[in-house]
Amino acid sequence: LHRYSATRHPVTGLSPSVGGGVRFGAMRFPSVIAAALLVGAPALVAQEPPIAEHGPQHTLMPVPRTVTRRDGRLRLDSTFTVAIARYDDARLRRAIARAVTRLEARIGRPLSRAIGTDASRATLVVNVERAGQTIQGPDENESYVLDISAGRAELRAPTVVGALRGLETVLQLGDRDESTFALPAVLIDDAPRFPWRGLLIDVGRHFMPIEVIERTLDGMAVVKLNVLHWHLSEDQGFRVESKRYPRLQELGSDGSYYTQAQIREVVAYARDRGIRVIPEFDMPGHSAAWFVGYPRYASGPGPFEIVRRFGIFDPVFDPTREEVYTFLDGFVGEMSRLFPDPYWHIGGDEVNGVQWKANARIQAFMQRRKLKDKEALQAYFNQRLSRILTRHGKRVVGWDEVLHPDLPRNTVVQSWRGIENLAKAAEAGYAGILSAPYYLDQIQTAEEHYVADPLPGWTTLTAEQQRLVLGGEACMWAEHVTPETIDSRIWPRLAAVAERLWSPRTVMNVDDMYRRLAATSVRLEAVGLTHESHTERMLRRMLDDRPSPGLRAFMEAVQPVNFGQRARMEPLTQQTPLVRAIDAARPDPPARWNTIRLVEAAIASGPPNDSARRVVRERLTAWRDAGASVKAVAEAKPSLREVQTAADALSRVAAIGLEALDMITTGTRPAPGWGETTLAELTKYDGPQGLLRLVVIAPVKRLVERAALNSH
Amino acid sequence: LHRYSATRHPVTGLSPSVGGGVRFGAMRFPSVIAAALLVGAPALVAQEPPIAEHGPQHTLMPVPRTVTRRDGRLRLDSTFTVAIARYDDARLRRAIARAVTRLEARIGRPLSRAIGTDASRATLVVNVERAGQTIQGPDENESYVLDISAGRAELRAPTVVGALRGLETVLQLGDRDESTFALPAVLIDDAPRFPWRGLLIDVGRHFMPIEVIERTLDGMAVVKLNVLHWHLSEDQGFRVESKRYPRLQELGSDGSYYTQAQIREVVAYARDRGIRVIPEFDMPGHSAAWFVGYPRYASGPGPFEIVRRFGIFDPVFDPTREEVYTFLDGFVGEMSRLFPDPYWHIGGDEVNGVQWKANARIQAFMQRRKLKDKEALQAYFNQRLSRILTRHGKRVVGWDEVLHPDLPRNTVVQSWRGIENLAKAAEAGYAGILSAPYYLDQIQTAEEHYVADPLPGWTTLTAEQQRLVLGGEACMWAEHVTPETIDSRIWPRLAAVAERLWSPRTVMNVDDMYRRLAATSVRLEAVGLTHESHTERMLRRMLDDRPSPGLRAFMEAVQPVNFGQRARMEPLTQQTPLVRAIDAARPDPPARWNTIRLVEAAIASGPPNDSARRVVRERLTAWRDAGASVKAVAEAKPSLREVQTAADALSRVAAIGLEALDMITTGTRPAPGWGETTLAELTKYDGPQGLLRLVVIAPVKRLVERAALNSH
Repeated sequence: LHRYSATRHPVTGLSPSVGGGVRFGAMRFPSVIAAALLVGAPALVAQEPPIAEHGPQHTLMPVPRTVTRRDGRLRLDSTFTVAIARYDDARLRRAIARAVTRLEARIGRPLSRAIGTDASRATLVVNVERAGQTIQGPDENESYVLDISAGRAELRAPTVVGALRGLETVLQLGDRDESTFALPAVLIDDAPRFPWRGLLIDVGRHFMPIEVIERTLDGMAVVKLNVLHWHLSEDQGFRVESKRYPRLQELGSDGSYYTQAQIREVVAYARDRGIRVIPEFDMPGHSAAWFVGYPRYASGPGPFEIVRRFGIFDPVFDPTREEVYTFLDGFVGEMSRLFPDPYWHIGGDEVNGVQWKANARIQAFMQRRKLKDKEALQAYFNQRLSRILTRHGKRVVGWDEVLHPDLPRNTVVQSWRGIENLAKAAEAGYAGILSAPYYLDQIQTAEEHYVADPLPGWTTLTAEQQRLVLGGEACMWAEHVTPETIDSRIWPRLAAVAERLWSPRTVMNVDDMYRRLAATSVRLEAVGLTHESHTERMLRRMLDDRPSPGLRAFMEAVQPVNFGQRARMEPLTQQTPLVRAIDAARPDPPARWNTIRLVEAAIASGPPNDSARRVVRERLTAWRDAGASVKAVAEAKPSLREVQTAADALSRVAAIGLEALDMITTGTRPAPGWGETTLAELTKYDGPQGLLRLVVIAPVKRLVERAALNSH
Repeated sequence: LHRYSATRHPVTGLSPSVGGGVRFGAMRFPSVIAAALLVGAPALVAQEPPIAEHGPQHTLMPVPRTVTRRDGRLRLDSTFTVAIARYDDARLRRAIARAVTRLEARIGRPLSRAIGTDASRATLVVNVERAGQTIQGPDENESYVLDISAGRAELRAPTVVGALRGLETVLQLGDRDESTFALPAVLIDDAPRFPWRGLLIDVGRHFMPIEVIERTLDGMAVVKLNVLHWHLSEDQGFRVESKRYPRLQELGSDGSYYTQAQIREVVAYARDRGIRVIPEFDMPGHSAAWFVGYPRYASGPGPFEIVRRFGIFDPVFDPTREEVYTFLDGFVGEMSRLFPDPYWHIGGDEVNGVQWKANARIQAFMQRRKLKDKEALQAYFNQRLSRILTRHGKRVVGWDEVLHPDLPRNTVVQSWRGIENLAKAAEAGYAGILSAPYYLDQIQTAEEHYVADPLPGWTTLTAEQQRLVLGGEACMWAEHVTPETIDSRIWPRLAAVAERLWSPRTVMNVDDMYRRLAATSVRLEAVGLTHESHTERMLRRMLDDRPSPGLRAFMEAVQPVNFGQRARMEPLTQQTPLVRAIDAARPDPPARWNTIRLVEAAIASGPPNDSARRVVRERLTAWRDAGASVKAVAEAKPSLREVQTAADALSRVAAIGLEALDMITTGTRPAPGWGETTLAELTKYDGPQGLLRLVVIAPVKRLVERAALNSH
């Protein structure tokens, strides 16, 4: 489960050393801003990296390895055509057809669907050397060169997968200027920094229908991710049809599982987008749902039920009985035909050992084999399981806990307990992927994810060890998400992680990331994701009505409490409807960063920035009125009453901000001690207000600090 | 195609006599409001029909036949349980499970999923007599009684379908009061006025994926509609997999068609919701897509192509050759196994006769058989086709044009050319359904659809003839819609049609309809429809950004031009991307009726209604500023420039409204002639402004008329 173990930071889900100097929560300004303040506040518009000195800034995400701007633009109009110059196959053609459809929607004109082969006459020439791997692995070549002049564009790539990446770049480059839609003339030479860039989706705790998976794959393709890590079994549900062991899904899924035809459909859908699908069947723990249908493979006495609560539970496979391995061999044999990826995730996390301890036969086995603790017994299980997987042609991936002296050398370790575990694995010679700082369910900011690097500048790993760091995976654990809310929890923050894993390490300007993230978020909506329409859609249902402007303003200034806070405050189970204000609120709403930037502009030294001050005043005024707005709505709709605390807190915080802004504008000197008292009051509002957190404390503190300077 | 023929009103798509006194366009106040003005303007909140004198007004849509309010409320909390008291089957259980899930989302608490059989201990007892028809037909019993006291609720119905209708009523009744979710104690005795209440979806001109069809079925179930009329073939596409004649879909569909498995899935999905699925394979005209794969069944020489433009085209089946009927017999035989409904729609509309006239062999056939014109030849074809369908157990439905002395007596005539044709059919002894006033693609108001009655009070049909009027169908023709926009064109206006066809004729208060429509619209969103999030989602894509408040306000005050206007102004084909401001705009936006009501309140006689005047002033101010808002946005995003005309017009109209409101508020006397001059100026803005129309001319005219009274 990865967030209940004591070794984790209970609130952020991160180990303390991750992220080098990033502060969690809004108590202080992030370090990037703090640095910016030292050198004088920048203007409202972010500064880098522009495509060139002249011309508009690009909104590419992830930022390519190199971008060289040229003079001119390539106009795209109804004469647009595509030609395939060299290697040609159905996957490439489908990808071009999808790209043309998306381009049509942006240009607003029908385009030719014919794909030619005469490179001399096409607007866009796709020049690919070969198909790429029959079964895509982490060593697939994803590079491409995009060569655009005023006359034509050429996309060159060694593989179809590289061309897929390049097509996304084309779509992100296109923009309208006056009445022309055009691509800037540019030379882009691009390749990923890390070969393994993934997203885990947990469909065990809350099942996600096939549409959710497919639209997520569409979004992943937009930001050049290449691994869907599909967490398919949990204490709360077993989600794949097994024809060999049908009681797995029949008794373990409440009827919510993927048929084998659907699995094949998703794998094909992902391959069409250059995305690998790695199944995870978590074992030996997190496996209660298996035992509902097959209790005899458990270490404790049955019967078993699907678990409804969340946490770490006792049911665990029995590693001491041969029939368990016979069963697993049959299971892996069946499933390995559904999942062609060369890797297979065995889970391996959070085994509490309770059932092993209580079982005399298992204890005797351990003594006989000199397995001194539960870790040793699990290592034994992993070795047996690894041998089965090897026989079926699979390499093993497992969570941190699998790291043990007896672990087969070709295992990949997925680090959820901290980047130091990733380093430890690399030092021991294991390949690894980082997940610790990319837990989307923790409700952190995009910035916090963005600044966490699998290979930070301060790494002490050797060059050879560094090559073992394959990349990272963001994790969407599903205690607190449903098909209705999951998009809002994944997007757009995942795009920041995607950039961290694709772009050079030096691409780390948080301000510019947020500028491009805003454009990317809208782009992601256009492929079918629902994160942008999420909040208002859910509010309408809560209210049976459209939300008022006051309520809208309020929701822009709050986010959910984090995972641990919610888990402690609410007695949630798998069956609790997730339809409240906390579910409607979005993590890291755009107003957070925008307001930080606006306030910096409003208080910058030099001549007063009147427009920034006016906008800050308008926002603060709307937020000050939030308490009354919410009260008015909640009178008719009591389901909203629970946010009154947060609304009143926001009102007070905004009133303080207005007071400070007035002092700054008029040069009024505050009463002695006002600054300290007021900052202390603001700090009071910095924790959970009910199930919500305010996201605008930091900029208001900045205003107060600046106003307090008037006294000197 | 139903909108290109000369017999139709070119703009509204209605024949002039339909709708008894309703005026199309916003030139004048609708008659209901005009009547209200005569008796003194009502307050802001609509007056009827309340559930009772005491207690809140219900938001049921359609309004049940009788509703008797009792004292008290039935609290729904986590102790809620359901029991099935008598007849029990899987369809009923699935329906209850869906209802419980939706109830959970409204209550915000997990409910028991167990369905008991002990009626004495359940909160909701479902008491059904029998399954209902094995294959649902128009004579299915859909009635139910809902008997709610403070202690428990009982839903009694003769059939499972009746229970489905009653469950929707339960979901619409539930509301939150203080912190309790509850049903009002009430006795509802309900049954539909008409047995045939449908929606046509044209998937020929633009293909609609299965998800669109299924979410539409979910919405239809909410408002108790019972027929999906699936228009599956057109000049622009043939949309069903035929295993017997595979070139139909292989060459006629661009790859966009339903597999037979998907057809079966939709039919089952619909049956689960008490909805019949009637296929339409339009013939002998509107059939070019058939002939791409099978040119030999056409009356003219091939080869044929899928038609990309919209209109009436020449390709038509050859009624004179026996092999055509052999083919159709094989086709009907195959398809009739997919579509179990007892009815089958043969189309039969808009045959222009060009290919028949040009074919000497066909002309000779007509002379030989004494078929004097194309209508007679079509009647011959229809007779032959009807015999085939009868042999396969199907009753025939056809459009108006099939009405001919030789038409088999058991044919159902679907009237698209006017209610007078429906009456003519009934007088000739044919059953009929009305579609003329329910063309959703025409972009009319919900009110216009609502007041059109299949059997208006002034009907001259005998009681027996009236029984032949089975109901009506709204039509969603798909020239101007895509999967992305179709929800916004169907919903929520279809709910007004649904009420017209279900509720007693006396339920006709337009103001109350709009009050309930607003709640219904949000309810429809909760089953997965996208109409409420539509405008902003599309704007975000156009802007690559979130829309400004000014642009939002502008979009609330405009709607698309109507079908004919757009068809004349834009050279649209099937391949034109529909992604512009006209596609983002919604028909009959809520601000239209709201503003009419607010203005009535603001100018009512008696003491001034300050709050209404303040809200009117705020809205008009936002709209006055629209011109500048749009200009600012369009500078960066030229795709928006095309709405500048409409934005400037709205600015001017709103400025006039503000001027008039000032005069009313201050009692200022306008200059002589001001009223007439100003009304004339407003009339200038009453037509298309580019591809948009303003929806707030009428209330501004009211303000001007009222201000002009000051001169007397």
